[in-house]
Amino acid sequence: MPRYDFASDNTAPATPEAMAALVTANSGFTSGYGTDEISAHAADLVRALIDADAEVRFLASGTAANALSVAALARPFEAVLAHQHAHICTDETGAPGFFGQGVGLIGLTGAAGRIDPAALDAALEQADVSNRQPAAALSLTNATEFGTVYSAGELARLVQPVKTRGHGVHLDGARIANAAAAGFDLKRIAALGVDLFVLGGAKAGMPPTEALVILNPGLARRIDARLKQAGQLPSKGRFYAAPFVGMLQDGALLRHAAHANAMAARLAAAMPFRIAHPVEANALFVEMDEPTLARLRAAGWFAYRFLDGTVRFVCSWATTEAAVDELSETLRGLA
Amino acid sequence: MPRYDFASDNTAPATPEAMAALVTANSGFTSGYGTDEISAHAADLVRALIDADAEVRFLASGTAANALSVAALARPFEAVLAHQHAHICTDETGAPGFFGQGVGLIGLTGAAGRIDPAALDAALEQADVSNRQPAAALSLTNATEFGTVYSAGELARLVQPVKTRGHGVHLDGARIANAAAAGFDLKRIAALGVDLFVLGGAKAGMPPTEALVILNPGLARRIDARLKQAGQLPSKGRFYAAPFVGMLQDGALLRHAAHANAMAARLAAAMPFRIAHPVEANALFVEMDEPTLARLRAAGWFAYRFLDGTVRFVCSWATTEAAVDELSETLRGLA
Amino acid sequence: MPRYDFASDNTAPATPEAMAALVTANSGFTSGYGTDEISAHAADLVRALIDADAEVRFLASGTAANALSVAALARPFEAVLAHQHAHICTDETGAPGFFGQGVGLIGLTGAAGRIDPAALDAALEQADVSNRQPAAALSLTNATEFGTVYSAGELARLVQPVKTRGHGVHLDGARIANAAAAGFDLKRIAALGVDLFVLGGAKAGMPPTEALVILNPGLARRIDARLKQAGQLPSKGRFYAAPFVGMLQDGALLRHAAHANAMAARLAAAMPFRIAHPVEANALFVEMDEPTLARLRAAGWFAYRFLDGTVRFVCSWATTEAAVDELSETLRGLA
Amino acid sequence: MPRYDFASDNTAPATPEAMAALVTANSGFTSGYGTDEISAHAADLVRALIDADAEVRFLASGTAANALSVAALARPFEAVLAHQHAHICTDETGAPGFFGQGVGLIGLTGAAGRIDPAALDAALEQADVSNRQPAAALSLTNATEFGTVYSAGELARLVQPVKTRGHGVHLDGARIANAAAAGFDLKRIAALGVDLFVLGGAKAGMPPTEALVILNPGLARRIDARLKQAGQLPSKGRFYAAPFVGMLQDGALLRHAAHANAMAARLAAAMPFRIAHPVEANALFVEMDEPTLARLRAAGWFAYRFLDGTVRFVCSWATTEAAVDELSETLRGLA
Repeated sequence: MPRYDFASDNTAPATPEAMAALVTANSGFTSGYGTDEISAHAADLVRALIDADAEVRFLASGTAANALSVAALARPFEAVLAHQHAHICTDETGAPGFFGQGVGLIGLTGAAGRIDPAALDAALEQADVSNRQPAAALSLTNATEFGTVYSAGELARLVQPVKTRGHGVHLDGARIANAAAAGFDLKRIAALGVDLFVLGGAKAGMPPTEALVILNPGLARRIDARLKQAGQLPSKGRFYAAPFVGMLQDGALLRHAAHANAMAARLAAAMPFRIAHPVEANALFVEMDEPTLARLRAAGWFAYRFLDGTVRFVCSWATTEAAVDELSETLRGLA
Repeated sequence: MPRYDFASDNTAPATPEAMAALVTANSGFTSGYGTDEISAHAADLVRALIDADAEVRFLASGTAANALSVAALARPFEAVLAHQHAHICTDETGAPGFFGQGVGLIGLTGAAGRIDPAALDAALEQADVSNRQPAAALSLTNATEFGTVYSAGELARLVQPVKTRGHGVHLDGARIANAAAAGFDLKRIAALGVDLFVLGGAKAGMPPTEALVILNPGLARRIDARLKQAGQLPSKGRFYAAPFVGMLQDGALLRHAAHANAMAARLAAAMPFRIAHPVEANALFVEMDEPTLARLRAAGWFAYRFLDGTVRFVCSWATTEAAVDELSETLRGLA
Repeated sequence: MPRYDFASDNTAPATPEAMAALVTANSGFTSGYGTDEISAHAADLVRALIDADAEVRFLASGTAANALSVAALARPFEAVLAHQHAHICTDETGAPGFFGQGVGLIGLTGAAGRIDPAALDAALEQADVSNRQPAAALSLTNATEFGTVYSAGELARLVQPVKTRGHGVHLDGARIANAAAAGFDLKRIAALGVDLFVLGGAKAGMPPTEALVILNPGLARRIDARLKQAGQLPSKGRFYAAPFVGMLQDGALLRHAAHANAMAARLAAAMPFRIAHPVEANALFVEMDEPTLARLRAAGWFAYRFLDGTVRFVCSWATTEAAVDELSETLRGLA
Repeated sequence: MPRYDFASDNTAPATPEAMAALVTANSGFTSGYGTDEISAHAADLVRALIDADAEVRFLASGTAANALSVAALARPFEAVLAHQHAHICTDETGAPGFFGQGVGLIGLTGAAGRIDPAALDAALEQADVSNRQPAAALSLTNATEFGTVYSAGELARLVQPVKTRGHGVHLDGARIANAAAAGFDLKRIAALGVDLFVLGGAKAGMPPTEALVILNPGLARRIDARLKQAGQLPSKGRFYAAPFVGMLQDGALLRHAAHANAMAARLAAAMPFRIAHPVEANALFVEMDEPTLARLRAAGWFAYRFLDGTVRFVCSWATTEAAVDELSETLRGLA
C-alpha cells in the first residue's frame, strides 16, 4: 500500500481531542436531529470562535454544505461566481447543480487560487439577459484550493462589489483553520458580509463533520427541513457536534492547523522541485513531469496531479517531521 | 430534561462494539472516498451477512440512501409504490422528490404498516396515462414503520407482480436487524428480487452510518459519482465503514437487535394501554389520549404521537430492563 | 372517430377572433422572446382586464405556468396547499415536483372542488417540524376542477389566513373566463392578495397560450431567465400574445365563456343522469355506471370518468345547441 | 423601431404554407395531447423526411426539446459533451442543468462551431473519477452555431468513438433544414447512430413548434408522461403538428431553407467586412468593431455581437433580395 500522508488532509485520522469528545458524547440517550445539548454547546463554541451570532448546524458532508449554500443564494436560473479552480467548480461532481436544480457556476480567473478582482468586476458587469444565467452570488474559498490565503482586506475587496449589487456571499472554509493559523482573522468573517460559510471539520482533523454557519438570518428559515430533505440533518446529531466541542473548547483547531502549516513550510524549505504557488497554508504545488511522478508513486508516496498541472502535497495535523523529511529525501533522489 | 429512552432508536448511544471499531479504525493514513481497506472489509462482511454479491457503500444518511434508491429505480415522471405510512412517504421531508427531481410516491394501504397485496395489485393495474406518474418500482420496509415484520414469503408475494412488470424493488432496512432478530432471513433478500436496499446502521446502534447494498449490478454504474454529487461519498470513508465491522464481525448486530426486540416484548407484556399493532420487533404503538400523553411527558418520558394516532415507544440495544419497568410503572399510574 | 365535443374544452378549435389576431400578427419581422409590440399590447389588455398592475408573460403551457408558480412560492422543502382534486395535484404528472425540485403538495378536502375552509385552517395549524414539508403557499382554482365557481368573498376567506402567515397565493385560472362569465369579478383578484395567477388561453378558445400574471413584483425579478430556462420563453412570442389581443380587445373572451356556460346549463337542464356537483360554469359531472359509459362511447361520444367517479361533460365556445341536444337525446336513450 | 430582418431567423413571420396548414387544422373537435390525426400525419411526414422509423412528438420549445434530450442521455452525475459555443452551452440559460437536475456540460473546442475530433477524443479519454461528472453523451448541432455545416462523414467521425463507448448522441437540428439545403442528407441521420434529435420548426419558418424525433426506441418509453410533466405535451397538439404538415407535404421546408442560404450567400458576396467563418448555411459572422456596430444600429439595423466577438447576420425564408441589398449598401457606407 502506498503512503497517503501527503495525498490530502482527509487521509489523516482524527485528532485525539476530536475523538475523545466523540467518545465522551456517546453516553446516554439524547433527543435527535441536532436538538441535543452537545449540538447546542458546539454551536456556542462556533459562535465564540467567530465572535458573531449565527445559526450553526453540523453536517456530514462538505460537498453538501457547499452545494446547499449555493442553492440558498442563487436560484436555478441564476449563477454563482467562483474561482475556476474552486472545489465547487471542479471537485464536487456538479453538486451545486444537483442541489441547486441546475444553478450555474461562472468560473473566474486569478493566480494561485485567488480570484482576480478585475475578473470579478468584469463578471459582475455582464448584462442581465434572459438567455444566460446571471450572477446572484460569490463563492470564496479560504485557504484557497492552491494553498494560498486571502487576507480579510483582500476578501473585503471581492465582497464589496458583490454586496453592492445585493448579491450573496458564500465562503468555503474547508481549510479555514489553516487560513486562520496563517493569520486570517475569523472574527472578521461576519463583518465582511459573508452570508453563510462552511467551517471545515474533516480536513481540520475531525471525524466526518462540517459546520454550516448561517450569518444571514433570512437564510436560516426552515433550515432543518431543508437539511432533512437533503440528507444532511443527522438523527444522531451529537456525533457531528462532539468533534467540534473537542476541537474548539481549548484551541485545538488552530493549534493543529498551525502544525499542518508548519509541516508544509518545512517541506517547502526542502523541496527540490519548483514550487508553483506561494506556500501560505498546508499545501504545496510543485512542477513535476509525469515520469517523475510515476517514480515517486513507485517509491511508495501517493500524490495527485492537480488542475493546473502541478503535483500537490498536503500536510495535516498528523503529518510528522519525520514523514516530511522522509518524503523530502525521496524527492531529492528524483529531482 | 425528559428521558428519550423510548422516543426512538436513534436517541441511544452507539454500541461498544461499534465504537471500539471506530476507535481502532482511527489510526494511520488511508486513501479516501471509500477506497480504504476498512471499507472493503466492511463490504465483505455485509455480503457475507446476506450471502450474496453486491456493491456496498457506506453513507451518512438513511434519508439520502432511501431517496437515492428511489431515484435509481424511478424517473421524475414515474412513481414509487410504498406503504402510505412508510418513512419515505411521511418522515423524510419529501427527500425522494428532491433527490428524484419530483419523482412521485403512491401510498398504499395495509394494516399495521404492511402493504395490502390487493392494494398493490390495484395500483399496478392502473392504466399508463400521460397525466399521472405511472408506477416504476415498489419500496418495502422491514421491520415496518409500525413494528411489524414481513416474512420472506409475504415479501415474495408483494415483489412478484412488481418484477413481472419489469419494475424495481427497494427495501428500506433501517430496522432490518430487528426484522432479522424476529426471524426474517437476510440471506433471502437477494433471491426475492430486491434491487437495492439500505442496511440500517444508526437505529441498530451504530454512530451515523447506513450501508447501501446494490444487488442489481446495472444500478451500480458510476455509483461513486452519484454519491459524491449527492453529498454521500464521505472523504473519510473508514468512519462510516468501521461501525459495520464492529457490529458484523462477531454477530453483535443481531444480538443487539434481539435485545431491543425483547425489551419491546417486555414492555408490551406490562402495557396497560391498548396495543394497536402486533409487537414483532422493537416498537409498540398504543392508544392514548392527549391528556394522558401530556401527563406522561410531564412525568419525564418523551414519546411521539404517530401517524395513525397512536403513541409510539421504541426500544433499542441500550434499553435496560430497569428502564422498561420504570416506564411501565409510570404508565400504570396513568392508565 | 368518436366525437370529442364534450370530452374537454381543449378539444375545440380556436375562436375566429383568436385566429384572426394570430394571422394578423404574422407579418413582418419583430424582436424575439416577448419583447415585441404585440406582446406588450396583449399585456396591457390583460392588465386592463384585471384593473391592476402586473408583469405579464405569455407561455405555451398551463402545466408549466402552474408549476413555475408553485416553484416561485414554495421551496423544495416546503409544500403548497391545494384542493386534493386540483389539476396540479392530479393531472399534471407531478409537474410541480419537477419544476419545484420535489416541492410538496398537500391535498385539502372540500365538496365539489371547493376547498373546505376548516380543512385549510387545520393544515395551516400543523406544526413546523423538520421531517415534513411545511406549507408555504395556497393554490386555488377558479372555476374549480368540478365546474363550480368561488365568489370573491369565498376566496377572500381562504386567502386571509394564508396571507396572515406570510404565505403566498397562486390561482390556476385555466377556466377563469368561465368563472368570470358566471359572475366572478376579475378586477378583485389583485386586491384578494393573489401573488400570481394563470389566465387561461387554451381552454378559453385560443390556440395554445396561457398568460402568467405576476401581481407580486418581487416574484418578477429575472422572470425571463426563469422562463427561458424552463422552456417557456418563446422566441416567437407574438404567436402566444396575439390570441390574447384577439380575445381581449373587444370582449370575446367573456362572450365565448358565457356561451360555454350557457351550453352547460342547457345540457344540465336536459340531463337524465344525476348531476353530482352544482353546474356553475362550463362542465357537468354526472353519476353513470361503467356499462352505460361504455354504451355512450359506443354511440360515438367520448367522455372521461373523473377523479370522484363521476363522468364529466365539458362545453366550450364551440359547443353548439345542436350538439347539446344531440348528446342529450343519446343520453336519454341510455338512462 | 430597428429592423430585425437579420437579427435572427426567429424574428421572421411564419411561412404561408405553415400558416395555411395551421388555419386548416383549426376545424372541428379533436382528441388532445398529440393523439389527433394531424399529429399522426405530421409524424408520418417526419419519418418520411428522414426515411427511418421514429417516435415523433411536437413541442413548443427547442430549449426544452434539447434539454429533455440531454436529460434522456445523461444522468445528473454525468455530463454531455458539446461544442463550447453550442446553443445548449451558451444560450439556453442552463436549461440542460434544470431539466437534467444538474447534469454537466463539457465544452469542446473546434473552429467555426464544428467540434475538433481531437478535442472530442481527449474528452472521451478522461478517466472516470468520482469527483467529476463523466461523459455519457455527445450533443451535436447542424448547421452549427456559426453557420457551418457538417457533412454526414464528419458527423460519423465524431459519433463513432462515442457510440463505441456506449454513450448516446443528440443532434440539435434547430437549423437542420439549412444544413439539408446545403447538402447534408437527412436520410443518413438514423444510420449515423443519433439517438434523438430536434427537427427545428421555428427557425425554419414555422409558428412555434419543434419536432422531437426519437430514433432509439428505448428512449421513447413513457415519453408522453415525461413531456407532460415538463410542460411540453400540448393539449391542443394539432397546433404544433400542423405547421410541419404544411412545410413537409410538398417540400416547402427545404425550399425555404435553400432561399435563406442563398440570401446569406448574396450578403456574403457583398460584405465589406471580413467574414470570420465559412458561409455554408444561412448566417454570416463578420469582424466589426464596437463603434461600427453602434453606427449600424443607429442606421436602423439590429444585429447581435456573438460569442466569439464577431457580429452575426442571419437570413431566413422571409429575407428578401432587396433587404440584403439595402443592408449591404448600409454596410458599405460603414466599412
